[in-house]
Amino acid sequence: MLPDEVRVKLSSALSSYKESGTSVVELSRCSKEFAEIINEAEGSLRALLGIPDNYKVLFLPGSAEGQYSAIPMNLLSAHKCADYIITGSSSREAYLEARKYGDIAIAASVGGAEPVYSAIPETDRSNFRPDADYVYMCYTNIVTGTRFNYIPDTGSIPLVADMSGFLLSEPIDVSKFGLIFASSGCSLAVPGMTVVIIRDDLIRRISPSTPTVLNYSLLSTENEWRNVPPIFEIYAAKLMFEWMLSIGGLEELKRRNERKAGMLYDFLDSSSYYTTPVDRSCRSMMVVRFKIDDSGARDERFIVEAEKAGLLNLRADDNAKEMAAAISGAMPEEGVRALIDFLIDFRDNNPDLDDFLGTNMLDLRL
Amino acid sequence: MLPDEVRVKLSSALSSYKESGTSVVELSRCSKEFAEIINEAEGSLRALLGIPDNYKVLFLPGSAEGQYSAIPMNLLSAHKCADYIITGSSSREAYLEARKYGDIAIAASVGGAEPVYSAIPETDRSNFRPDADYVYMCYTNIVTGTRFNYIPDTGSIPLVADMSGFLLSEPIDVSKFGLIFASSGCSLAVPGMTVVIIRDDLIRRISPSTPTVLNYSLLSTENEWRNVPPIFEIYAAKLMFEWMLSIGGLEELKRRNERKAGMLYDFLDSSSYYTTPVDRSCRSMMVVRFKIDDSGARDERFIVEAEKAGLLNLRADDNAKEMAAAISGAMPEEGVRALIDFLIDFRDNNPDLDDFLGTNMLDLRL
Repeated sequence: MLPDEVRVKLSSALSSYKESGTSVVELSRCSKEFAEIINEAEGSLRALLGIPDNYKVLFLPGSAEGQYSAIPMNLLSAHKCADYIITGSSSREAYLEARKYGDIAIAASVGGAEPVYSAIPETDRSNFRPDADYVYMCYTNIVTGTRFNYIPDTGSIPLVADMSGFLLSEPIDVSKFGLIFASSGCSLAVPGMTVVIIRDDLIRRISPSTPTVLNYSLLSTENEWRNVPPIFEIYAAKLMFEWMLSIGGLEELKRRNERKAGMLYDFLDSSSYYTTPVDRSCRSMMVVRFKIDDSGARDERFIVEAEKAGLLNLRADDNAKEMAAAISGAMPEEGVRALIDFLIDFRDNNPDLDDFLGTNMLDLRL
Repeated sequence: MLPDEVRVKLSSALSSYKESGTSVVELSRCSKEFAEIINEAEGSLRALLGIPDNYKVLFLPGSAEGQYSAIPMNLLSAHKCADYIITGSSSREAYLEARKYGDIAIAASVGGAEPVYSAIPETDRSNFRPDADYVYMCYTNIVTGTRFNYIPDTGSIPLVADMSGFLLSEPIDVSKFGLIFASSGCSLAVPGMTVVIIRDDLIRRISPSTPTVLNYSLLSTENEWRNVPPIFEIYAAKLMFEWMLSIGGLEELKRRNERKAGMLYDFLDSSSYYTTPVDRSCRSMMVVRFKIDDSGARDERFIVEAEKAGLLNLRADDNAKEMAAAISGAMPEEGVRALIDFLIDFRDNNPDLDDFLGTNMLDLRL
């Protein structure tokens, strides 16, 4: 969700960038305005995250999936082996993709034959092979609403983290990671771009058979954009970064996110009508997962009525019998209050049998 | 350049898509609105180009460079060989990328040791190896302003064409090609997306080591978008396609493009102050290349004064001593007239020595 002021600026730059009469998407790649937008976006991102100087920042077109291939293609070296922590469908997909390129092991996982992914495994150095080229993790699982509550200790092995849906929701020590990437749609700005933050010693001359558009070494060479930079998405991100800085940076965003998520989890925990399957120790502050009951009988009605009430996008995914509320950075507290009000109304208007029997009468209306 | 009505619609959908209160870039991937936009964009593109049913249409994130790798990775089969026609820096780059993956030959070229690329070679079937998996061409060379004025006859060998900067400027018989691709920034809509039109027999199960984001078979599987579709760019393209249909389709665009380019080439041909290096037989209607003289002495002043006059982006590229005027589809005839007026004014205010000597006095003011 975009803050109103970002939305207004974005819409206006589409009509005319800085009153030039030219739309931001019509700027020439060679123009100084084009370069300025990219430099300012990078500068603000560095300020927000405190990115050390020995890390490069890349704004690449497309969503995070491209990095599932790029990471093993660029980071596997002599040993050709890497260890993956599997905590959801994204890290599982990344693991399957990486297996095309080397000896990839599952270092830790919470999934069984029919994975549920509602918790996060504990790990220590003994989980990782000493000769691994890198350890891979997905910091948050958007689908199930879990998140790591610690940074795995991998010793000297570079740690690679997919932070889609997490990056810029709270401060993070970038120096603990070898590579961080995040697709822009979830927590940064508008979808269509992926941010890669990579420690420069990991940018190496690699196998020439690597496609140019996945080759970090070529992509990070200054003045040598092999891909046309996704200028609209970069501009939207620049506006978001500036907005984030203006409200007080990531400390303030963390405070807001915890407050909003706390309201919603407190309500869900105190309700016997709704439940959240996510372990208390690893609940995402950005995406709150919940369900009505296991039957799924009231799910369709819930979605329809939520949309009528202006609450869009609550369906977790096409198949699941669960709901997911994205309550990230820019969503105001009133948005969460409106959601809780709707949850209460829906519960009151669609009682289950237990309610009729009176067992749920003590449920607090928050 | 976007037509005003497209720009207005795009800007308004960014604020609120169909008065939903939600921005088009905030739509959920699972929403019916999201699917509708993609289906409508595809439908309009099919209508414009008359794309046969046995061709798939993919809207992929990123610029055309990704396809330089994807094409050999997907289309090289048993023989692992393909023939490239080199007519500019784009086809040369595509050729160098393809060489990573198979036996790639130059079937025809206009470049020497220091390539100029101001013409287009003639070809016939004898130029191509009978066992080639495909023949590759770049339909137009945006940098030098050349274009193919014929479709190479490759017999039964699939013809692959980069149509960036050409697609949708005039009608084209899609059935003559195995694969057409075009990055969206040049002639379709806003930059950041690449359209791929591929004959379905060329979508095959391919080497598992191909990165998923470059695997046409996976990318074209329905309901299985491995990449998040670039929704903003697709929406912009949809609006452009609808605008193109509304003015009369590609026949009308061709008429407009020829008329505008004709005005500009006629002026350049009749001038001894400006020259255009492009052979008459293969001049692009979309990008008109010209220069003042070989010294480049007046180029910087030209660019500065052009920008003052509101004519942006006339620099052909960072290094060249040439100018390039993009006069594609949506640019109105008045835009070309304004450019010619500026060219006349600049000439009159910045005479060269020949003018002082009077040899240029017969130059017609068009």
